[in-house]
Amino acid sequence: MSRIAYVNGSYRPLRDAAVHIEDRGYQFADGVYEVVAIADGQMIDERRHFERLQRSLAELRIRPPMAEAPLRHVMREVIRRNGIRRGSLYLQITRGVARRDHAFPAGAAPTLVITAKSTRPQPAALVEEGVAVITLPDLRWKRCDIKTIALLPNVLAKQQAKEAGCYEALLVDAEGRITEGTATNAWIVTAAGDLVTRPLTTAILSGVTRLTILDMARGLGLTPVERSFSVAEAKAAREVFLTGTNSMLLPVVRIDGEAIGDGRPGPLTRALRTAYERAIAEGHIR
Amino acid sequence: MSRIAYVNGSYRPLRDAAVHIEDRGYQFADGVYEVVAIADGQMIDERRHFERLQRSLAELRIRPPMAEAPLRHVMREVIRRNGIRRGSLYLQITRGVARRDHAFPAGAAPTLVITAKSTRPQPAALVEEGVAVITLPDLRWKRCDIKTIALLPNVLAKQQAKEAGCYEALLVDAEGRITEGTATNAWIVTAAGDLVTRPLTTAILSGVTRLTILDMARGLGLTPVERSFSVAEAKAAREVFLTGTNSMLLPVVRIDGEAIGDGRPGPLTRALRTAYERAIAEGHIR
Repeated sequence: MSRIAYVNGSYRPLRDAAVHIEDRGYQFADGVYEVVAIADGQMIDERRHFERLQRSLAELRIRPPMAEAPLRHVMREVIRRNGIRRGSLYLQITRGVARRDHAFPAGAAPTLVITAKSTRPQPAALVEEGVAVITLPDLRWKRCDIKTIALLPNVLAKQQAKEAGCYEALLVDAEGRITEGTATNAWIVTAAGDLVTRPLTTAILSGVTRLTILDMARGLGLTPVERSFSVAEAKAAREVFLTGTNSMLLPVVRIDGEAIGDGRPGPLTRALRTAYERAIAEGHIR
Repeated sequence: MSRIAYVNGSYRPLRDAAVHIEDRGYQFADGVYEVVAIADGQMIDERRHFERLQRSLAELRIRPPMAEAPLRHVMREVIRRNGIRRGSLYLQITRGVARRDHAFPAGAAPTLVITAKSTRPQPAALVEEGVAVITLPDLRWKRCDIKTIALLPNVLAKQQAKEAGCYEALLVDAEGRITEGTATNAWIVTAAGDLVTRPLTTAILSGVTRLTILDMARGLGLTPVERSFSVAEAKAAREVFLTGTNSMLLPVVRIDGEAIGDGRPGPLTRALRTAYERAIAEGHIR
């Protein structure tokens, strides 16, 4: 089956799906996006993705291209037309097409693009053996709380990770503290047993999976701590893991080549992963 | 006459010129660009724009879509087909179309888009009376030396300037020093008479007009100084001006509402502007 994309009011074959060369998303990265995981044909954490999308649009003062209910309908329709059971939905909204000029255009209508694709299950080895990461200076702008398509710094860091044989790059601020990964949030379990992740500021994105794992940790009787931590602290941690829409929850067993703990996924990481998988399988995260 | 765009090997009406929704320029801001001024149907400072383009591509490891000679031919052809005498050429190169994944795709061919438009002469009042600017924190990433399409921070700052009734926003680093404008480089003439502009680091773009004005200043017997300067120093300067492809060279007469000098364009600014206009009119900057 050929894939179907939704672009500005029409469903069309993905291979023909195009936007104008003067779309501000193309010339200025003037747009936002969301990636939503699909399980059993249903969107995971749909409400939280929607809330974040609305916040991103408001921060950039991009007008929503349609009201929430019809937009959710279109998202479901893209999933249905592509016959996706397990996969992900991609949604992008830009400020629209206008003669090139940095300032906001007067009359442009926002551009809406939605696609969906099937994905294979995450390789079991990633979960069972964990992943290696590198650390890199965080070169990104100062509003990483907005989920914009200006992803070039993330692209470059992810490529460096890949060339180093690593799954992800953890980005490090000027004070030597980890902000987040290129497409994940970072967590540690300290020697004292505290579950720690960086608090929400303009330095990181409010990960949807991060919020859900915070809830789940509390549900397991834990008291997660939101504070910054250094690269040194992460390397000395008992456990380290990543969360993200595509990654779900993955153990980190090596940072810059140095083993975390005994070099194997830790018990708290495994417990949270299991709880997360169960919640998805049982349809508790919608 | 309807405008003509060049997209990946074909000339087509601008209104139909499109790129795929999975172009990495659209999803990741994974691309670079140049804007070249056109006078008398000829490109201004073509060689320097070309050198910068090649550097930008090399920094991002994007393969040039064609060799230099044919690319220059296409640029001329776009100008010719659009019948441009005075205006600007826009050229954008992205890493191409690929299934969405942050890391560089294996087989993607780069996307090349070129357009050209006629522009009106710069309003005489801008040159004769000067412009007002505001200062804003520089929120951009740490590789502003690469001319990428990840321009969202510039867009937001330019919009703030516009809403403040100003021509441009000068961006200010964490140490209170001006980096550059959203689409211009910044210069001051100090109380001691020194002509100063910020040195080239990863914090600013190497403006083509900046380089040409440095040459011209030396040609006028001046010794320009490349060093950083603070907002306070700019406000206390004798003269302040901006350079850029679209702005050419424009006097700044107010920063954050505070008058520079006597609130009128200064003599050195006027001399450099006159020299620049003459060089263009006489075809000396090619």
